Amino acid sequence: MKLNIAVLPGDGIGPEVTAQAVKVLKAIAMEFNHVFTFNYALVGASAIDKHGTALPQETIDICTKADAVLFGAIGKTAFDLDPDAKIRPEQGLLGIRKALGLHTNIRPIIAYDDLLSKSSLKVRQIKDTNILIYRELTGGIYFGDRSLSEDGNTASDVCTYHRFEIERIAHQAFKAAQSRKRKLALVDKANVLESSRLWRRVVLEIAPQYPDVKVNYLYIDNAAMELIIRPRQFDVILTENMFGDILSEEASVIVGSIGLLASASLGDEHAMFEPIHGAYTKAANKGIANPIASILSAAMLLDHFGLDEEAALVREGVDKSLKLHITTPDLNNKYDNISTTKVGDFIEDFINNPD
Amino acid sequence: MKLNIAVLPGDGIGPEVTAQAVKVLKAIAMEFNHVFTFNYALVGASAIDKHGTALPQETIDICTKADAVLFGAIGKTAFDLDPDAKIRPEQGLLGIRKALGLHTNIRPIIAYDDLLSKSSLKVRQIKDTNILIYRELTGGIYFGDRSLSEDGNTASDVCTYHRFEIERIAHQAFKAAQSRKRKLALVDKANVLESSRLWRRVVLEIAPQYPDVKVNYLYIDNAAMELIIRPRQFDVILTENMFGDILSEEASVIVGSIGLLASASLGDEHAMFEPIHGAYTKAANKGIANPIASILSAAMLLDHFGLDEEAALVREGVDKSLKLHITTPDLNNKYDNISTTKVGDFIEDFINNPD
Ligand SMILES: [Mg+2]
Ligand SMILES: [Mg+2]
Repeated sequence: MKLNIAVLPGDGIGPEVTAQAVKVLKAIAMEFNHVFTFNYALVGASAIDKHGTALPQETIDICTKADAVLFGAIGKTAFDLDPDAKIRPEQGLLGIRKALGLHTNIRPIIAYDDLLSKSSLKVRQIKDTNILIYRELTGGIYFGDRSLSEDGNTASDVCTYHRFEIERIAHQAFKAAQSRKRKLALVDKANVLESSRLWRRVVLEIAPQYPDVKVNYLYIDNAAMELIIRPRQFDVILTENMFGDILSEEASVIVGSIGLLASASLGDEHAMFEPIHGAYTKAANKGIANPIASILSAAMLLDHFGLDEEAALVREGVDKSLKLHITTPDLNNKYDNISTTKVGDFIEDFINNPD
Repeated sequence: MKLNIAVLPGDGIGPEVTAQAVKVLKAIAMEFNHVFTFNYALVGASAIDKHGTALPQETIDICTKADAVLFGAIGKTAFDLDPDAKIRPEQGLLGIRKALGLHTNIRPIIAYDDLLSKSSLKVRQIKDTNILIYRELTGGIYFGDRSLSEDGNTASDVCTYHRFEIERIAHQAFKAAQSRKRKLALVDKANVLESSRLWRRVVLEIAPQYPDVKVNYLYIDNAAMELIIRPRQFDVILTENMFGDILSEEASVIVGSIGLLASASLGDEHAMFEPIHGAYTKAANKGIANPIASILSAAMLLDHFGLDEEAALVREGVDKSLKLHITTPDLNNKYDNISTTKVGDFIEDFINNPD
């Protein structure tokens, strides 16, 4: 297969972890006789430094022409402490999601047996947890109108949802549930928010088309608790943009590290793959960033094009690295000094020689 | 002291747990020679059943005249499954907060030594956790304009904050931090939301007035994770309405049970005290509802009027009930059949004979 892959390493630890994912994809291409080409582009603070915007037109063009986008991370501490900055790294990520129409974000939350003890949660609490979060990605309050009054004393954000935005992701989530444990949980705040009531109404309407899927309805505050005390109750979670942002980062505690969480963002025409973790500037250029989330994002990219055997081999490599403690310091209490690059090299080697 | 207390038991388990809190307050009045009078009023689904509204004017009047309000819980399953219901139990709670101007909600999150093993989290993870959450209660998206388009296909909610709403709770939170571990964490989503940027700007401006308080800034998605993996890092958490709703319910996992979480809601003229848990209709009228959160809410009521010795005695009674396993089934794996009423009776007895 020929794949033209746009690579947007971004800021902080983004470039380091993305380099490992590219390394792994190259090994897969070699091993399976595919032709993967990689086109690099700037985004986030690194794009602001060079072009004065977090999302240059050239980056959009490269992504639009690509078959898939591999994304690193964006963000820079200086902007976090300056609420007045008009140009912000996050505009790069929100902008590319909008430009490519990436309306559906999919995040697997899997409790790896080899890492159960790493979690803040008790082992018996999380064992066998396997959740797929479907998060709507281009609607809601992150994309609504915002305003600040002239005197700077009143600020507003609007959360809007349209029926079609809910329907398209709901159908996908229902279909995913059918191929899994046939359970779907809608998370909203329908007892208070009008937009949440629209979500609930649409899902109640669609549900009869998937009679084999059992639907459960939770409020976001309750879901934030249930996710920790009864994670195994969940199969597919369907939710709106901000609630999905909160729940998926919270869910990382089940996996033991946010450095393991990959995601796919799908639109009707484009697809982007990225780790859930941010730029984590403090850890940049120290060789300590965990590349697994980025490598598992590359595995989701392979899934997306039906390259099942290839994706499985990448995941086997990841499993093996976890089992043999070839992991960065965040996960490792056996060996010191296993760097970002070493983890990538190990998985590359495994792909070349899967013994 | 003479106190006129409005009692709003509400729905589901509300009446059962509130009855225990009233019992405890009566024992305190007896023991310390206070005169507490209790005036009951309807709210939530029980008010809808009788008056067709979740918050009758009579209820507002009783609360307005009272020195303090003791609140139970509201909600009914039938409404949760009907997104089209125009009259909803939750309007009773949101309405009374608005009517009494209760803008500041305070929720202590304390890991009780006797209950550490109950938590989903590892004991070493949560031991000595003591957090005070300051949640803004009458602004933000829960109180903003909402709209549904004529064709029912587009729904919106508006999140608005005014500088004065942020300032008044921020000053209170800073003062609370000064009397504790002198750490304050602001939780927002300032990298995306205009309202969050106003929060951050105001807190950045106010902070120099409290030079002994160390301020930390977190995004809500990150905070939802940090609360689980490093709960001891937090002293006072300051946040807006919805983020506070999510974080405080999530934080219940630290305490081991949402049945232990009390809260105070304060305005400039009024004060209300309530458990964090909801109506939990499934458990109603079975004698299994945990009354501790409601009883600890009564302790916060006593705190509020400077009745420190009285509040301490109630908390001692609660501690003793936990230590001796005089608890409802949610916490008890030693004795069966300890009912809601029995827990209340035990604490009442302890107050009468603290030996
Ligand atoms: Mg996030
Ligand atoms: Mg809540």
